[in-house]
Amino acid sequence: MTQESAAHPPGPSDPLPDLTAEQLDTLHRIGRRWSRVTRPPQEWRDALPVDPNVGDYPARHQIRLPRYERFVTVSELGGKARADQVSKVTALTSTSTGRVGSRVRRVLLGPALKSTALVRERMRKLVALPVLSSDALSSVAYGPEALLTILVLAGAAGLALSLPIALTIMVMMLAVGLSYRQTIRAYPNGGGSYIVTSDNLGRVPGLVAAGGLMVDYVLTVAVSIAAGVAAVTSAIPSLGGATVPLGLGAIALLLAGNLRGVRQAGILFAAPTYLFVLSVAGVIIAGLVEAARQGFPPPSQPQVDATTGVTLFLIMRAFTSGATAMTGIEAISNAVPAFKPVEWRNARTSLTWMVATLLALFGGIMALVLLTGTLPRPNETVLSQLARNSFGSGLMYVVVQASTAAILLLAANTAYNDFPRVLSLLARDHHAPRPFMRMGDRLAYSNGILLLTIAAALIFVAFDGRTTTLIPLYAVGVFLAFTLSQSGMVVHWWRSRGRHWRKSLAFNALGACMCAVVFVTAAIAKFTAGAWVALVAVALFVLLTLRIRAHYDEVGRALRLRPQSATLPGNTVPTPLCPPKEPPPEPRPAAGTEDTWEEEEAEETPEEIHHLSVVAVETLDLANIRALAYAASLRQPVLAVHLSPTDEEAERMTRYWRHWGNHLPLEVVVCPYRTIIAPLVDYVEALHEQRPDLTITVILPELATSRRWHRLLHDRMAFRLRHSLRERPKIVVTTVPFHV
Amino acid sequence: MTQESAAHPPGPSDPLPDLTAEQLDTLHRIGRRWSRVTRPPQEWRDALPVDPNVGDYPARHQIRLPRYERFVTVSELGGKARADQVSKVTALTSTSTGRVGSRVRRVLLGPALKSTALVRERMRKLVALPVLSSDALSSVAYGPEALLTILVLAGAAGLALSLPIALTIMVMMLAVGLSYRQTIRAYPNGGGSYIVTSDNLGRVPGLVAAGGLMVDYVLTVAVSIAAGVAAVTSAIPSLGGATVPLGLGAIALLLAGNLRGVRQAGILFAAPTYLFVLSVAGVIIAGLVEAARQGFPPPSQPQVDATTGVTLFLIMRAFTSGATAMTGIEAISNAVPAFKPVEWRNARTSLTWMVATLLALFGGIMALVLLTGTLPRPNETVLSQLARNSFGSGLMYVVVQASTAAILLLAANTAYNDFPRVLSLLARDHHAPRPFMRMGDRLAYSNGILLLTIAAALIFVAFDGRTTTLIPLYAVGVFLAFTLSQSGMVVHWWRSRGRHWRKSLAFNALGACMCAVVFVTAAIAKFTAGAWVALVAVALFVLLTLRIRAHYDEVGRALRLRPQSATLPGNTVPTPLCPPKEPPPEPRPAAGTEDTWEEEEAEETPEEIHHLSVVAVETLDLANIRALAYAASLRQPVLAVHLSPTDEEAERMTRYWRHWGNHLPLEVVVCPYRTIIAPLVDYVEALHEQRPDLTITVILPELATSRRWHRLLHDRMAFRLRHSLRERPKIVVTTVPFHV
Repeated sequence: MTQESAAHPPGPSDPLPDLTAEQLDTLHRIGRRWSRVTRPPQEWRDALPVDPNVGDYPARHQIRLPRYERFVTVSELGGKARADQVSKVTALTSTSTGRVGSRVRRVLLGPALKSTALVRERMRKLVALPVLSSDALSSVAYGPEALLTILVLAGAAGLALSLPIALTIMVMMLAVGLSYRQTIRAYPNGGGSYIVTSDNLGRVPGLVAAGGLMVDYVLTVAVSIAAGVAAVTSAIPSLGGATVPLGLGAIALLLAGNLRGVRQAGILFAAPTYLFVLSVAGVIIAGLVEAARQGFPPPSQPQVDATTGVTLFLIMRAFTSGATAMTGIEAISNAVPAFKPVEWRNARTSLTWMVATLLALFGGIMALVLLTGTLPRPNETVLSQLARNSFGSGLMYVVVQASTAAILLLAANTAYNDFPRVLSLLARDHHAPRPFMRMGDRLAYSNGILLLTIAAALIFVAFDGRTTTLIPLYAVGVFLAFTLSQSGMVVHWWRSRGRHWRKSLAFNALGACMCAVVFVTAAIAKFTAGAWVALVAVALFVLLTLRIRAHYDEVGRALRLRPQSATLPGNTVPTPLCPPKEPPPEPRPAAGTEDTWEEEEAEETPEEIHHLSVVAVETLDLANIRALAYAASLRQPVLAVHLSPTDEEAERMTRYWRHWGNHLPLEVVVCPYRTIIAPLVDYVEALHEQRPDLTITVILPELATSRRWHRLLHDRMAFRLRHSLRERPKIVVTTVPFHV
Repeated sequence: MTQESAAHPPGPSDPLPDLTAEQLDTLHRIGRRWSRVTRPPQEWRDALPVDPNVGDYPARHQIRLPRYERFVTVSELGGKARADQVSKVTALTSTSTGRVGSRVRRVLLGPALKSTALVRERMRKLVALPVLSSDALSSVAYGPEALLTILVLAGAAGLALSLPIALTIMVMMLAVGLSYRQTIRAYPNGGGSYIVTSDNLGRVPGLVAAGGLMVDYVLTVAVSIAAGVAAVTSAIPSLGGATVPLGLGAIALLLAGNLRGVRQAGILFAAPTYLFVLSVAGVIIAGLVEAARQGFPPPSQPQVDATTGVTLFLIMRAFTSGATAMTGIEAISNAVPAFKPVEWRNARTSLTWMVATLLALFGGIMALVLLTGTLPRPNETVLSQLARNSFGSGLMYVVVQASTAAILLLAANTAYNDFPRVLSLLARDHHAPRPFMRMGDRLAYSNGILLLTIAAALIFVAFDGRTTTLIPLYAVGVFLAFTLSQSGMVVHWWRSRGRHWRKSLAFNALGACMCAVVFVTAAIAKFTAGAWVALVAVALFVLLTLRIRAHYDEVGRALRLRPQSATLPGNTVPTPLCPPKEPPPEPRPAAGTEDTWEEEEAEETPEEIHHLSVVAVETLDLANIRALAYAASLRQPVLAVHLSPTDEEAERMTRYWRHWGNHLPLEVVVCPYRTIIAPLVDYVEALHEQRPDLTITVILPELATSRRWHRLLHDRMAFRLRHSLRERPKIVVTTVPFHV
């Protein structure tokens, strides 16, 4: 995997991988065998009853487009010269099945976008910084509070520890920030944890890192929304009971916005971050000035009862809870290509600014907490208390709370960008179901967005939308990913030994150690409180992705053009493509076991396929006669089968058949068990055993009803039969629809 | 509809209706057109690569049969001479899809039964009486109590009315019993309300009667189970909290028993009824003797506070609640053919006995209630109080309670026999979905049984399994059906004017009036208490059944062999069945609207079908090459279509195609919207518009994965495409499976 290809998530137009030389050779040899039996290409084409080139077709069922459509119009394509065999779709149509759904979709999400509409935006530093740092900066809204919530359990003695713990966290922020500066330089195309880890440490560590990231993206959404709702309910306490509905509303908003394909675009996303930074800075400065004016009085001793002593375990818990303020610090290194050139240099500068801002805000808030003796309260956030303390409850306070809620929504939105992107990378590497690689008609990874929404909403509801209960799950995954990613960078520098490699290696090693400490501490200290959920989720994720990969590998092996497959049936005499007159080949011994399927099914040229059509006839009505006519018109051997509940009914059917003219061979199967599927499947299998070389096409009439509920009124014979026969080799099921 | 055919529910081997002379004629004419283009029958048959007669095939996937299998063995069939074109299924096999499910099923339900195993049992009067009267007799377990529950609301003044109301109900029982004696004579094959009403009053009244019956069968299950559970919890008060689980357990028992195909068979079902009658008679006699010994003292004035005055409305409610004791009185007239000959005479005698017993039990209980001053209590049934009063809490008391619970279970089982039977009659008349006509492999109407179970369980849970809340819904439907059925009998006698017609008409008219009075009273008095639910359900039932019938009629018209359809395309020149060399017919003008589909699809002979196969090729791998080979081997025009996201990918596909040898025409469609289904559907439609006379077969490769969850990992292209194309005329979808 080259770094170049590894970095970009799969684009909307990425083709399937090229055929290898060996495969091309095999293809050519298969083709040579076709040419012995088929007509010349031009003759085939002339025999077509239609002109296959339907040109640029503008979709009859096209939905009326909204006024501000954003994609290329039909006329623009008209002038372009096109290859001979190419028709072109000029606008996306709705399929009939989803006509109403499609209309609703267009109204909500806007018209379909062409792949060419995907322009990767380049951002100036002043725009990129706020856009990419919302996740990291917003975490000061809950990090300090999470730290205090644990320490307060040990009363005043516990709170006395908040200063050293906060300083430790700030040192770690600095170290991790420096570490990621190295990643930016090494991965100028974007170095997410999954990419860096699988590049340098191998597949399974990469998946572990990806699992940690995925779990944490889900938790980022849940925690950010929970903290954002807390900012709102702190300001408007009467909303306190509506936490869960408010949060679900916010998640729905994110879902709709992201399905519509909202990007992290410019001013709109930059404004709340700047506003948040400025207003929190205002809170800190106003608070410090006030404290200075009073000559830094010792804080009024907080009235708290210690429910536990100061233990190492408590310190570990407090430390890891506070370390959640570090989440999001990797965002810039993921998104290096989004910067204007020189990308990596701009990204590094931005990272430095971001870490500096983060340190300032975190340190300022902690200082203010200590100076004012603020304590966490169940109904009001610490930040809200500080803001009230600095500004009273006026306009400025409202601005602080509103910008806090806004930046937390943006932080959740960051997860909405990253989760589907990582999932698409996994899908590209065959570790996740292929649909996650597909961009929807709005050029968003719709399936990934949906999955994230469902997971985040479930978690949010299960934990009642309370930040304090979610925090223990959080950060475990992130620090696992950080640790692996930084360790990967150490390996990278050791291997590459480019310029400044020693310095970079040292920084990354320091970062890796720091992150490892936090991860281990968090896993131990918060294990019973919830971290085990995250760890189990990561483990399941790794197992699942490995099994998915194994399946795709198996399918790929089965489907790949192989040299031996082309030579395998080469000893059969080619037969020209005209009605079969030669005696059919001797039946091979019955196979039946699954091991021989692959060989049996190796039918790569028309000459290797010997047909038998079996028409299941229920009665002689128009639908069944059409199915018989369809079968007979294919000019292959046809056998009609009728399942009869009694001998009398069998006799009657035979009589009707003779009356009709006995035009096709009829076999009546008497089955006194009032069931159709099982005996028919067995009958077809019995035929297959007689002649395993035959391809048996089972032809069924099917009523196509116009309304959905009408389908309940008919046996879904075709559906059930197809389902029952799908495991059998060399059996093709065809339904001839009859419209009522 | 003759009475003969009307009476029997559809049997397991009932064939589809015979073809009419006109249809036979049409069939013959279609056949004549076939003979101009097809080979002689024997030649077709000789061309078959297999011997279609696989003989008696014993199912490879057969489940090992349990020891006590009840159906005909394979060897028994061996000696029988068989028609030429007949294979025979000798044992039911499982389809692979349900191998585990099938095994579970066999263990729970027993092996599959042949249709011939369905023997209609003939019962002696002494057996038939208890079997058929469990529903009617068991209702004395809740009828008197329901009456008292209402009257007690008006205190002592209300209770004073219990004697006249009880006497009125007994008079009505007598009248309705006499009325049904007439029905038995007129419908010796069984005269259920649906049959009698639709025979004499027409389709819609018949459906109303059926709706009333169906709703009440559901309520019979719910009420009987509720009352049975009450009998148990009266004896064992500690079970009082487990009403709902106990009831659901009983319903599950009924479900399993009936799916297994338990019939109302002999002694097992007769014993509880006799035991119940004897023990209740014992309670009554012991109570009366005790009262007589004390010189019939006036009952201790019950201490009740009147919460309402004695109003007409209250009397109406009490009367209709007590009238629930009459439910089940029609059972014998439904089941006349179950008696030994002379059936109708034996049935009449049994009906007389049953009504006499019912009167005695109902009257006795009411008398004892009045003599002892017993009042309904929330935690103990009236019958339980009476039994304790007569026998104390010893063995005899337990026998009374146990037999009460047993007979109520039997009563619920009666509904399990009748509900699916009426539903199968409705399905036979095209008023209900066809699957309800089908007997499962245990010869039970499994689908009807399942529907009843779901409905009854929902009602039972929704009403907390309390008899008092269910009673208001009950009886409305039954008396609606009774009224219509008796009115139908009046019409019957008026029309037929056979022997004693005047007397019979008078009895039936009296019965109809009585039932009408109860129905109207119940509908008014209990409307707000719950009767509206039953009435709305009946109305919805009638609407639904009429719409279902309309749909089946429409389908039937569309499928029926029609004279004009045979002559319609008669002017086309017949073409012999060999590779088409003649120029294709001129394209007709594009049709597109639904109105012309029927005509378009009138393809009754092979010559009228002109093929085009369209293979959707995603890439050139083994699965796709097999699909191409399959298409080419059908020796019809083939067009390969590839959907490409970009021009570059289109160009690459074309290159590979040429490398392969360009053996088939390829059309590349460039669709920049990252979706496959919609553009492919539109492309196929565009081809269809060019030549509406063509039948387009869309051929797709499909991966057949062995595990269910693997399917999630692949686009279900074939499924979705089939779904999207199903509304289009003349488009056939074929999937060529490729097994991994």
